[in-house]
Amino acid sequence: MTTGHVFIATSLDGFVARSDHALDWLMKQNTGEGDHGFAAFMDSVDGLVMGAGSFRTVLGFGEWPYTKPVVVMSSRLTEADIPQHLADKVRISPLAPEALMQGLNAAGWTRAYVDGGRLVQSFLRAGLIAEITLTLIPILIGSGIRLFGDLPADLDLDLISAEPFGEGLLKTHYRVRRG
Amino acid sequence: MTTGHVFIATSLDGFVARSDHALDWLMKQNTGEGDHGFAAFMDSVDGLVMGAGSFRTVLGFGEWPYTKPVVVMSSRLTEADIPQHLADKVRISPLAPEALMQGLNAAGWTRAYVDGGRLVQSFLRAGLIAEITLTLIPILIGSGIRLFGDLPADLDLDLISAEPFGEGLLKTHYRVRRG
Repeated sequence: MTTGHVFIATSLDGFVARSDHALDWLMKQNTGEGDHGFAAFMDSVDGLVMGAGSFRTVLGFGEWPYTKPVVVMSSRLTEADIPQHLADKVRISPLAPEALMQGLNAAGWTRAYVDGGRLVQSFLRAGLIAEITLTLIPILIGSGIRLFGDLPADLDLDLISAEPFGEGLLKTHYRVRRG
Repeated sequence: MTTGHVFIATSLDGFVARSDHALDWLMKQNTGEGDHGFAAFMDSVDGLVMGAGSFRTVLGFGEWPYTKPVVVMSSRLTEADIPQHLADKVRISPLAPEALMQGLNAAGWTRAYVDGGRLVQSFLRAGLIAEITLTLIPILIGSGIRLFGDLPADLDLDLISAEPFGEGLLKTHYRVRRG
């Protein structure tokens, strides 16, 4: 089965964004030189899975940043919502996480980059996440959109590495232990 | 002014305990050899500040584990609630965090160990926490009692150190940046 892989940053109090989706607290950080493994991570996945919210955010960047195929999980969007220049890069899927991953598996994907707080939560609940690379940003913002949510059962993790970088950022890498 | 210091562990998803206060997920961890700096931390503080809930929990341990003075913040408990053998070690204070810390300052305390999720939240809100030593436990438990809560404003942190220990635990040490 295709495995899900997370590469994300949160405030030390666990938020991926403020309640209004603002990322000012993240953007102001001094991350130092280099990309801290992001290019290598992107190389390691067969494509990305994201929600409609993340898709809209990335569209807002202007230039499309991904060379790998992207699946947008949405029951509301249709292929008509994909700008023409992205038609060969992005597709919409109304499937739930388990069925989607079965489909990606059949399509030859080994590893999927699962992005966005809500998606990470649903994939974790479905037991579809194998690894989490979580960068802890040295700030408490008090409220916002959480990375982690309810789970049907505990998920034990193995710490693979922990590596400070930039001005107080801490990149942690965990593997989800199979139950 | 006396500064507040936190030394605590949470699940990777930010909980100090399950909703029913259970710590089974924490107790099952393999923490390896040594005390990972706890004795040195205790040596560095003049005493402890805890809430009534933590006080009851510690009383339940049977043997009283602290040699330093303990202040229990409670508007309901009275000196009569302190077992006689602890009369010279524990006192009750109905004061709010700011007033309590002013009193501790007048009593010569430089550094106070602030313990318990709810207390840490109120001291953070009042700007009374100077340092946080947070051990991340390699598990997601999905729900429970959070360490961090709402804040009147962002709190920027400096990462002092990050040190893995035991089987996948990660001790992080942050200093709260003065605004």
